[in-house]
Amino acid sequence: MAPLLKDELDIVIPTIRNLDFLEMWRPFFQPYHLIIVQDGDPAKKINVPEGFDYELYNRNDINRILGPRASCISFKDSACRCFGYMVSKKKYVFTIDDDCFVAKDPSGKDIDALAKHIQNLLCPSTPLFFNTLYDPYAEGADFVRGYPFSLREGLPTAVSHGLWLNIPDYDAPTQLVKPRERNGRYVDAVMTIPKGTLFPMCGMNLAFDRELIGPAMYFGLMGDGQPIGRYDDMWAGWCVKVICDHLGLGVKTGLPYIWHSKASNPFVNLKKEYKGIFWQEDIIPFFQAATLTKDCDTVQKCYIALSHQVREKLGKIDPYFAKLADAMVTWIEAWDTLNPKEGAEANGKPTKGK
Amino acid sequence: MAPLLKDELDIVIPTIRNLDFLEMWRPFFQPYHLIIVQDGDPAKKINVPEGFDYELYNRNDINRILGPRASCISFKDSACRCFGYMVSKKKYVFTIDDDCFVAKDPSGKDIDALAKHIQNLLCPSTPLFFNTLYDPYAEGADFVRGYPFSLREGLPTAVSHGLWLNIPDYDAPTQLVKPRERNGRYVDAVMTIPKGTLFPMCGMNLAFDRELIGPAMYFGLMGDGQPIGRYDDMWAGWCVKVICDHLGLGVKTGLPYIWHSKASNPFVNLKKEYKGIFWQEDIIPFFQAATLTKDCDTVQKCYIALSHQVREKLGKIDPYFAKLADAMVTWIEAWDTLNPKEGAEANGKPTKGK
Repeated sequence: MAPLLKDELDIVIPTIRNLDFLEMWRPFFQPYHLIIVQDGDPAKKINVPEGFDYELYNRNDINRILGPRASCISFKDSACRCFGYMVSKKKYVFTIDDDCFVAKDPSGKDIDALAKHIQNLLCPSTPLFFNTLYDPYAEGADFVRGYPFSLREGLPTAVSHGLWLNIPDYDAPTQLVKPRERNGRYVDAVMTIPKGTLFPMCGMNLAFDRELIGPAMYFGLMGDGQPIGRYDDMWAGWCVKVICDHLGLGVKTGLPYIWHSKASNPFVNLKKEYKGIFWQEDIIPFFQAATLTKDCDTVQKCYIALSHQVREKLGKIDPYFAKLADAMVTWIEAWDTLNPKEGAEANGKPTKGK
Repeated sequence: MAPLLKDELDIVIPTIRNLDFLEMWRPFFQPYHLIIVQDGDPAKKINVPEGFDYELYNRNDINRILGPRASCISFKDSACRCFGYMVSKKKYVFTIDDDCFVAKDPSGKDIDALAKHIQNLLCPSTPLFFNTLYDPYAEGADFVRGYPFSLREGLPTAVSHGLWLNIPDYDAPTQLVKPRERNGRYVDAVMTIPKGTLFPMCGMNLAFDRELIGPAMYFGLMGDGQPIGRYDDMWAGWCVKVICDHLGLGVKTGLPYIWHSKASNPFVNLKKEYKGIFWQEDIIPFFQAATLTKDCDTVQKCYIALSHQVREKLGKIDPYFAKLADAMVTWIEAWDTLNPKEGAEANGKPTKGK
C-alpha cells in the first residue's frame, strides 16, 4: 500500500544542525518530500542522511526569494520554519523539531506520528459540542447519547496538534521549578478543541491543511533583533484558532505522541520568554475577545483583519506589536505572491472539497 | 487512613431492584452513607446488602415529604434520583446506577471510582484556557508553555463526570446500529470542559458539590405521564454547565471509569427518546445562546432565570416545556424548603472556601 498522501504532504523541519534524527524516522518519512529551513549561519553545511528527498533553504535563499519581504521571516529562532509552509506546494504540511524521535505506544510499538496526523486531518472535527468519549470517529467509538444528530457530520479539520512523551513542553519558570519532570502519561485520545476555546499550540509535532489554514500559520517575529522568543507557535496557534472558529474549521489535539529527547536550557528560555510571560496576560484576553466580520470569508482576509486589531489593541502594550502587525501583512503579501490563486487552479488543485 | 470526606458525602442510588451490585462496591462504599431512591411500586421491598448505612425513600416518602411539590420529582424514571440530592445534608454527592460495577485500570487494578471523583472535586478546574497535557494538577503534569500564569490557580470544581467501560452510553439509534459496540478504550485523563462548551452529562457515574451547584442538579420531568425519558441527566447537564460558566465554576470529565454491565433495550429507549432527538436540535442552540445577568449571583437565582427562558423560548416547541419550566421553579422551592439557609449556617457548613 502506498503511504497516505505521499504526493500531497511536505515535512517541514527547521534546523541548525545535521539531521541525524531522520535516521530513526526513515521508515515513516522517507516516502515524503522534506523542506528543510536552515536557521543561523548560511555558510554552514547541514548534512541530511542519504535517501531522503528534500529541498533546503538557508537565510540567503529566503532573502533571495522574498526580497524585502524576507523581513517577516524570523532569524535565529525556529519561527523561521514558517517559510517552509509558504514555499510548499502541497495541500498538507507536517512540521517536527529535530530533537523529536519516534515514541512507543503502551504496547511497545513504534508510533507512526505522521500517519496518525494524516488520519486526524482527513477525519472531521467536532468543535460545536463536546463528545465525552473523545473522537467519535475513532474505531470503537461514536457520539454519545445527547449529542445532536445535526452536528454529527462534523467540520473539516484544519490542524492536528500532537503531544510529547518524555520532556514536556514547559515554559522556563516551570522548567526551573521542575527540572526532572518527565511526561510518561500516554493518553489514548484525540479531541477537538471546542469552538471559542484557545489553546497553547506547540510547533514541535504539528500538522495542518495548508489549503484550509496555511496563510494563518505565521510564526511571527522572534529571535534575532526581536524582544521575545518561544512564542512563535503560540502566536500562530492563537491566530489560527480564532480564524478556524470563524470559518467553521476544526482543530484537534492529542495523539500522536513523539519522544522529545532533550530539554532546552531554562535560563536561555527565561531570557527569551520573560516579556511574553507578561504580554500573554493581555494577548489571551485579546484573542478571546477578537471577532471577525462576515466579509472575512478567506483565511487571508481574516488574517489581515486580525493584524489591524493587533496593531490597534496590542500596540498599546509595546511598539513590538505594531511591528508584528506590519509583519503579519507582509507575510500575507509574500504568501499570496508565492501561492498565486491562478497557479493553484492551473495546478489542478482545488482549494475546497476533500 | 480514614476514607476521604467520609462524613461529607452521600451516595445516591435510584433503583427498582435489590441492590446486590453493592457487594462489589463494598470495599469502597461501605464507609459512606447511602441515599436510595426507590422508583416504581412503593410496596415492593428492596433488599440492601448488610453492613451498609442507608436511608431509603419510595414514592410514598417523596409525596409525604414534599406534599404538592412532589410533582416535580419524576416517577418510573431514574430521574427520580434527584430527590436524593435534595434530601442529602452533605456537601458532596456521588450518584451511580445499579448496573455499574467496579472497572479495572490497564494494570488490572480495581478502580476506586469514588476516590477519584473526590480527588477531581477537591482539585481546581481550568475552564478558561485549554491545557494540552490535560489535568495540570495531576501527578507528573503541569501547565504547558503558553498557559497564562494568572489562570493557573483555576476555579472551584462543581462537577466530576466519570465514564464507562464496556457498554457505552449511546442513544437508541446508535444502539440499534451498533448493538455489539463495547468501549474498551481507557483514556488516562481528566479534563475540564471549557467555558462556553456544552456536553452530554450522563448520570450513571457522576459526582458534584451540592453546595456549589446542587440546586441546578434537577433531572427534570421524565417517565410516567411525560412525553420523554432518558433526557433527565442531559437536561441537568445543560442547565448545570450554563450556570457553572456564569458563576465561574468548573466541570470535569474523564476518569474515573466504571464497568457498565448491560445495555438497556434499544426499542424501549427509542420510544422514550424520540421526541428528545427532535427537541435537542433546538434545546442545544437555546442553551448555547442562554445568558444570565449579573444579579444572578446564586445557583437558585440562575436556575429561576433559566426557567423563565425555557418557558419563553422552548415553550414554543411544545407545551411540555412550559410544564418543565413550572417544575424547575417547584424544584427550587422544594430545595430551599428542605435546605434552609439558616440551617446550613447553624450546621457550621460555610458555602464557600475550600
